[in-house]
Amino acid sequence: MAGKKALVLSAQNFEDTELICPMNRLQEAGYTIDLAAPQSGDFKGKVGYTAQANMSVSELPEDPGREYELLLLPGGKAPAELRKLDKAIQAAKSFDALGKPIAAICHGPQILITAGLLQGKNATCYSSVVEELKEAGANYLDQEVVVEGTYVFSRYPGDIPAFNREIMKQLDMG
Amino acid sequence: MAGKKALVLSAQNFEDTELICPMNRLQEAGYTIDLAAPQSGDFKGKVGYTAQANMSVSELPEDPGREYELLLLPGGKAPAELRKLDKAIQAAKSFDALGKPIAAICHGPQILITAGLLQGKNATCYSSVVEELKEAGANYLDQEVVVEGTYVFSRYPGDIPAFNREIMKQLDMG
Repeated sequence: MAGKKALVLSAQNFEDTELICPMNRLQEAGYTIDLAAPQSGDFKGKVGYTAQANMSVSELPEDPGREYELLLLPGGKAPAELRKLDKAIQAAKSFDALGKPIAAICHGPQILITAGLLQGKNATCYSSVVEELKEAGANYLDQEVVVEGTYVFSRYPGDIPAFNREIMKQLDMG
Repeated sequence: MAGKKALVLSAQNFEDTELICPMNRLQEAGYTIDLAAPQSGDFKGKVGYTAQANMSVSELPEDPGREYELLLLPGGKAPAELRKLDKAIQAAKSFDALGKPIAAICHGPQILITAGLLQGKNATCYSSVVEELKEAGANYLDQEVVVEGTYVFSRYPGDIPAFNREIMKQLDMG
């Protein structure tokens, strides 16, 4: 899988393991990760890890779904910041339009809600996001992982094993 | 892989992602985890996560290598506590004697040093452990992962992708 790339969008106060464990899993499978945040450089997780964004969200290409095999949206407080950024919303729409996998956990689906991509889809998310997920027209399911077409959703860190398993299946590596 | 089990030994002040990410990876592959610590119940990682030991080290069977497919030894300050416990040392010797895989990262190899299992082996570990690793007769290699027979060694959290990849190969799932 040399040369394959995944895009991760996150920000300050990300849920640490929801960023780190799926990134580790993708790297294990030979993927190169581009991690984009509101500003490039170091930023901190809720629990205390430091992540390093190698690009800012503003530097994302116009149509990142052409360049990457997967869009990963970890949770924590990061998605509340990312959903304010047009380039982050545009990135999610690009992956959707091109039929490329999007994996969102915890608060990650907030970005997809703002992008208007969840209407009519089965989905899951963190408990505090359930109401807005439903208002966005999604069918909320309280399951460790929900797969809907090219989308993978999970609820919280305890779901990471199932979340990663379904991400790998989307990439034909499961 | 239903019914397959892995044993993890850890303690207070474990390196959070070195415990959580490999456990997630094993669960993704269908393994059930038994997590043993000096006392059963909740204990905290260095960075701030809480792990839950479902058994104490004293409750381990006499010969755990018969029951489990893998022994995982995450790092942080935990191995310094575990190496004082005869049952933890005995567990490592059991896996070694039965030719079952042992995966140790960061400070994890300290348990194997105390067990006298590293003489003549290629190995790696966290920088502060290098001297005692060499004194124990191991051949230290500064690599992201070192595989020596049924042993897998890594240095620190950044090595987890390679560490997990080689663990899966040991379990014939890589």
